[in-house]
Amino acid sequence: MTPSEASETAAGAPPAPPSALGVGMVGYAFMGAAHSQGWRTVGHVFDLPVRPTLAAICGRDATAVRAAADRHGWAAAETDWRALVARDDVQIVDICTPGDSHAEIALAALAAGKHVLCEKPLANSVAEAEEMVRAAEEAAGRGQVAMVGFNYRRVPAISYARKLIESGRLGELRHVRVTYLQDWLVDPEAPLTWRLRKEHAGSGALGDLGAHIVDLAQFLAGEPLVGVSALVETFVKERPLPGGAAAGLSADTRADGGRGAVTVDDAAVFTGRLASGALATFEATRMAAGRKNALRLEINGERGSLAFDLERLNELSFHDHTEPAPSSGFRRILVTEPEHPYLEAWWPAGHALGYEHTFVHQARDLVEAIATGTGPVPTFADGLQVQRVLAAVEDSAAKNAVYTPVPQPTD
Amino acid sequence: MTPSEASETAAGAPPAPPSALGVGMVGYAFMGAAHSQGWRTVGHVFDLPVRPTLAAICGRDATAVRAAADRHGWAAAETDWRALVARDDVQIVDICTPGDSHAEIALAALAAGKHVLCEKPLANSVAEAEEMVRAAEEAAGRGQVAMVGFNYRRVPAISYARKLIESGRLGELRHVRVTYLQDWLVDPEAPLTWRLRKEHAGSGALGDLGAHIVDLAQFLAGEPLVGVSALVETFVKERPLPGGAAAGLSADTRADGGRGAVTVDDAAVFTGRLASGALATFEATRMAAGRKNALRLEINGERGSLAFDLERLNELSFHDHTEPAPSSGFRRILVTEPEHPYLEAWWPAGHALGYEHTFVHQARDLVEAIATGTGPVPTFADGLQVQRVLAAVEDSAAKNAVYTPVPQPTD
Amino acid sequence: MTPSEASETAAGAPPAPPSALGVGMVGYAFMGAAHSQGWRTVGHVFDLPVRPTLAAICGRDATAVRAAADRHGWAAAETDWRALVARDDVQIVDICTPGDSHAEIALAALAAGKHVLCEKPLANSVAEAEEMVRAAEEAAGRGQVAMVGFNYRRVPAISYARKLIESGRLGELRHVRVTYLQDWLVDPEAPLTWRLRKEHAGSGALGDLGAHIVDLAQFLAGEPLVGVSALVETFVKERPLPGGAAAGLSADTRADGGRGAVTVDDAAVFTGRLASGALATFEATRMAAGRKNALRLEINGERGSLAFDLERLNELSFHDHTEPAPSSGFRRILVTEPEHPYLEAWWPAGHALGYEHTFVHQARDLVEAIATGTGPVPTFADGLQVQRVLAAVEDSAAKNAVYTPVPQPTD
Amino acid sequence: MTPSEASETAAGAPPAPPSALGVGMVGYAFMGAAHSQGWRTVGHVFDLPVRPTLAAICGRDATAVRAAADRHGWAAAETDWRALVARDDVQIVDICTPGDSHAEIALAALAAGKHVLCEKPLANSVAEAEEMVRAAEEAAGRGQVAMVGFNYRRVPAISYARKLIESGRLGELRHVRVTYLQDWLVDPEAPLTWRLRKEHAGSGALGDLGAHIVDLAQFLAGEPLVGVSALVETFVKERPLPGGAAAGLSADTRADGGRGAVTVDDAAVFTGRLASGALATFEATRMAAGRKNALRLEINGERGSLAFDLERLNELSFHDHTEPAPSSGFRRILVTEPEHPYLEAWWPAGHALGYEHTFVHQARDLVEAIATGTGPVPTFADGLQVQRVLAAVEDSAAKNAVYTPVPQPTD
Repeated sequence: MTPSEASETAAGAPPAPPSALGVGMVGYAFMGAAHSQGWRTVGHVFDLPVRPTLAAICGRDATAVRAAADRHGWAAAETDWRALVARDDVQIVDICTPGDSHAEIALAALAAGKHVLCEKPLANSVAEAEEMVRAAEEAAGRGQVAMVGFNYRRVPAISYARKLIESGRLGELRHVRVTYLQDWLVDPEAPLTWRLRKEHAGSGALGDLGAHIVDLAQFLAGEPLVGVSALVETFVKERPLPGGAAAGLSADTRADGGRGAVTVDDAAVFTGRLASGALATFEATRMAAGRKNALRLEINGERGSLAFDLERLNELSFHDHTEPAPSSGFRRILVTEPEHPYLEAWWPAGHALGYEHTFVHQARDLVEAIATGTGPVPTFADGLQVQRVLAAVEDSAAKNAVYTPVPQPTD
Repeated sequence: MTPSEASETAAGAPPAPPSALGVGMVGYAFMGAAHSQGWRTVGHVFDLPVRPTLAAICGRDATAVRAAADRHGWAAAETDWRALVARDDVQIVDICTPGDSHAEIALAALAAGKHVLCEKPLANSVAEAEEMVRAAEEAAGRGQVAMVGFNYRRVPAISYARKLIESGRLGELRHVRVTYLQDWLVDPEAPLTWRLRKEHAGSGALGDLGAHIVDLAQFLAGEPLVGVSALVETFVKERPLPGGAAAGLSADTRADGGRGAVTVDDAAVFTGRLASGALATFEATRMAAGRKNALRLEINGERGSLAFDLERLNELSFHDHTEPAPSSGFRRILVTEPEHPYLEAWWPAGHALGYEHTFVHQARDLVEAIATGTGPVPTFADGLQVQRVLAAVEDSAAKNAVYTPVPQPTD
Repeated sequence: MTPSEASETAAGAPPAPPSALGVGMVGYAFMGAAHSQGWRTVGHVFDLPVRPTLAAICGRDATAVRAAADRHGWAAAETDWRALVARDDVQIVDICTPGDSHAEIALAALAAGKHVLCEKPLANSVAEAEEMVRAAEEAAGRGQVAMVGFNYRRVPAISYARKLIESGRLGELRHVRVTYLQDWLVDPEAPLTWRLRKEHAGSGALGDLGAHIVDLAQFLAGEPLVGVSALVETFVKERPLPGGAAAGLSADTRADGGRGAVTVDDAAVFTGRLASGALATFEATRMAAGRKNALRLEINGERGSLAFDLERLNELSFHDHTEPAPSSGFRRILVTEPEHPYLEAWWPAGHALGYEHTFVHQARDLVEAIATGTGPVPTFADGLQVQRVLAAVEDSAAKNAVYTPVPQPTD
Repeated sequence: MTPSEASETAAGAPPAPPSALGVGMVGYAFMGAAHSQGWRTVGHVFDLPVRPTLAAICGRDATAVRAAADRHGWAAAETDWRALVARDDVQIVDICTPGDSHAEIALAALAAGKHVLCEKPLANSVAEAEEMVRAAEEAAGRGQVAMVGFNYRRVPAISYARKLIESGRLGELRHVRVTYLQDWLVDPEAPLTWRLRKEHAGSGALGDLGAHIVDLAQFLAGEPLVGVSALVETFVKERPLPGGAAAGLSADTRADGGRGAVTVDDAAVFTGRLASGALATFEATRMAAGRKNALRLEINGERGSLAFDLERLNELSFHDHTEPAPSSGFRRILVTEPEHPYLEAWWPAGHALGYEHTFVHQARDLVEAIATGTGPVPTFADGLQVQRVLAAVEDSAAKNAVYTPVPQPTD
């Protein structure tokens, strides 16, 4: 499907499914590998109106990108993302680069009539994200689809949790509490990579882990955060310069003895209020010894509660508060039944899925959105909303934790 | 032991153990029952220098207090706490009344030369608590002991957790996160008792549950909170007036249709910093559907982490971060070994203790403190420190969550 | 209540509650301490028609028994159990001695018109147990009560599990699986105490742990085992002779180097069929490293399932198979609600009980049985049934695991 | 690699890796889908000496097999497995059919010089399995590889558990207990499919689930079962005839009212002894309401213990009994570290794998075995050993649970 075809069909009837969907992916590190697995697998598991093909992959180093294309199963390799965007066999541009290049690539891809899938965070600044939203809204008029990659929404247990909340099983919400705990920076001798410098990474745990939990909180609650109060901390203020990375750091950032300053947060804790008045608490850290990927959330409502832990992603805990007290309790639902979201296409009940399946599900949902002409979620506007929350968190932390409103779409 | 005897022996050698320790308890509701079980049991389980006796119990209603004395095993009953304090057979005054009477009774008991055990919170205001600390310090010079009843410190798993931290197994601390979740106010039709009116109860979840978790955080970390940022919320703003309680509420607090305003918090969330720079998060609520007594805490340090849940109080989770990664993980320690705190006196390994055992342990530690002349913990000063934190939480909440320093003892 | 009074009132109307219930306890080791705690506490927690008193305790060593009386709160001490049985102030004889003396004491106590509580196992042989049942049945005609001390039936979660099964929540039963895992014999250098010699202890893990799980399986299922197939094993065949215990072992049991033969089982595994046709599996061992008191059971029925672990005795897992699959799962019921068995008398919801509370509940149920003239459970006949299962297990193990019928009461 | 090439290089040096490895798969139901995912993915994740290709898939229904080829990504489709075996582009024959055709296909494939991967159980009878082992041993002399598909050995947690046991962390083993609990036959109205008729399926839960747990027990322990005692049961003896399946059932199997007899077991429970003397217990059932895929195992040794649950397949519980008791306990190892088996190729620590990854790992290990000329495990001989255990279980069950020796390879 070309954009012009899409715009012709946008009014009234759903569009005819495109006859081909070539994917062009920019970036081939961790996220690139995960997305590749998603694109490779989706057509062999789900019934799709059209199967995506792995058309081309892009990276700056010609040798490395060719090796990545071979490893991950991409038909062609490019070293310039503009060339990738321009390819006729690319209908979807999948952006897996660091956040500082998201806006430029996404804007160009949308302008070129492509559908876009952009990794989170949507951008490194609210201004960039706003520009991306405007471009996505224009492109939507031409039948183009733009989606941001908050893949955890597509853990079946999370999708199912949203269904339970949407159908009123929790009633009015009172509490949302979410932590995302990792421990890979506990060692003070872990080197000062670019991820620990603000000019490259934007922020630390806040942008990396905090973006996920803010999105999940708002997605599950079905309502936005309206204000936040935050504290952030950098526990290890200097780290040894790595051999390679040292070259990328300016001289003034170096301390004595081959050490340099860490300029992003190690951890962020914040509280907030949702639009309904529910209270929310958040914690994002890379300093929680023993916690590897502990994205844990609990939501309490007037009629029930839900709890989830990404380290046990096939399970959802649900308490139905309308049951008689003596026989009630949090039940451990194994979210592997055919009635659960996405599960019909997979294995029999009780057979676990893993982390990477979220990318298969993301690919499916994007393809369905393109084929049916229905809007994909999360939209770029959803990504912008998360950016606004993170910006408010940073503002609050800079002002002694004072409660800081989050600008709303209608503001 | 009379106070004068105590003061004579205070200098130099430890005092001779008192020949008798009569307890006089004021109040006989939930806490009274729990303390009674502690006093009745302690001498039959622990080897004590002197066994306490249940000398007298005090309450305003003569019939009720006599019934309580009979039920709980007290030798005598009084209807005036001043008479109880004055009794010759009472050496320890155990204060189990609501917080607004703590100061008056404790001051009188200390002035009368008695040892004092005072339920938490120490008082309803910082000013009262400060006066109590001064009185306790003077009394200490006369060999009297004053202790505040933060009984959860005496869950064996908590005592053992403190030992692990004290011995350096966690290294420098990074994170303390504690929640105390209950659900008995989830139902909006639960009646407006005195506990939900500020003039009687002081505060809501904050004072009741928050006091426990602030004390535990500081006790386990071994350092005070230096500042906090807080949000509080009352989700259900009006509740039906109860028949009996309505009488105790002034006319102006009544709303139409037999409902009245809730004037305390349903929930409080706050963040803070410990003296060492570690970040802390707290949540206290009575609106978490399905959570009955979920006092959950986790502490992360540079060398390890600990986790605990009061609903599984015989267990402690410990992660040793100095172990090789592939075989490391949070271990579930069943804190029932003879080497664990208090356990030598109880049952064989694997045989669970319960909630009430904390009161037996409290009784033991108080008796030991009196007999050996060593200071008991938690002291009134510890109780005051908790009050200061709670006051800072209330101040912060009143000022849009702004970060609010906690005055320190040396301030 | 004297027996003659009881027999007069046995026909027709319930008897008047006895005016006094003095307890005389034989034995003061681990079980003696636990029973003492039960007797001391029960009248201060439950509303009883009459409060039991701790009249006298009995042991062979005069000094030791006097110390035990003082420690545990008994009014008098005896060194001859016949003297204890004969005391006028003793209406209940509580037998906490090793199994080889149960029959003699119980028979004498019943003959003397006393109520009897006898620790499990009821006896060391089926023949003795049969005689005890006959004596208990005769005594019942005189208004006397005889109960066997399977205290785990009185863990609230177990009592509640029985209620769920009784009310049909599990439907027809398919599977019962129970393990009782401990680890105090893992160390091959643990000494050869009398517990490891058949002439003193009767059997090893089978009689000690197996008796509990056979009783629980039959109690919960509400039906007897009709046949079993068993393997038993002694992993450590020789152990060092202990200093003190060596004296009690005959010369011919000693091996070279101060070691002696272990003549009881370390572990027993067995399968069986219940009367309804459900399959059952059992494992009792003291060699499961890391398991301290892991009495774990799961029962599966056509309409639901239950699971329990004694190391988490305040919890019961329940799966309701009649619910829609997507939202069903094992729920963790915190068995601390006032509606749960025994809980009304204790603490607010969420406040854990422990191991020793089973003895308080046992005391309550015995007192109620005596006062109301209703039969107490478990009866001596229940104890006999367990003995028959254990005897069948031993027979099966001796015959290469061949399926061995369990004689039924009607056989 | 052709077989002749392989046989030339078999002596002395490792063979040169084959230049191409085409896979031909027979069967395309559940196992076919899972194996396809394994073959499709393995070359994109692991560094392999040669990447396998999905050459051809085979099934009897021409339309269905063509659709399956398209869905699962196979280059060609065949309707006759003999034609598939004969294809030049097929070097590996992957047998995913029901057990009654395993022997015939495997023997033909080995005779044709192909490598073979055969799903479990290896065959429906010990005699067939013995013939397959002989053929595999002959083929090994020609450089061919034959492997049986016990995929659960390749759950990283299981592989790692084996490493811990192999390195002595558990010491001498005492207990192995394994259950495999499912619930898809709880409903008595579930239809009588071919799986419930002995002539088609061989056995019920025993062959399907029991085969897995017998293999895992022997694999982890590193030693064979030497004898077993068993009970089996069919709880629902008649089930409604399904529309389609009824055609495949002979007239004499039908009962009144459109119901037919179930002729396989619903559940099997058995005990046994390992070569070292350790005791083992097993339970396989499809009637455990609420258990979806509960393959749970625990192994206790003199120095430590391990526990695992397939419903939480990224976790392994490990207790180190050599640690000081007060700080020891079962630790929950998240088996997602790069040092863990297979994990280096996947995602960062803490990112869960799922059920299907076992098939990717199986494909990798088979390719490595072919390329390096080292024997693959589990071999056909391992599969035969499992068949011998299952046959002994059936013999024992038929003879009233009598202990039945398992013939050993050297017998």
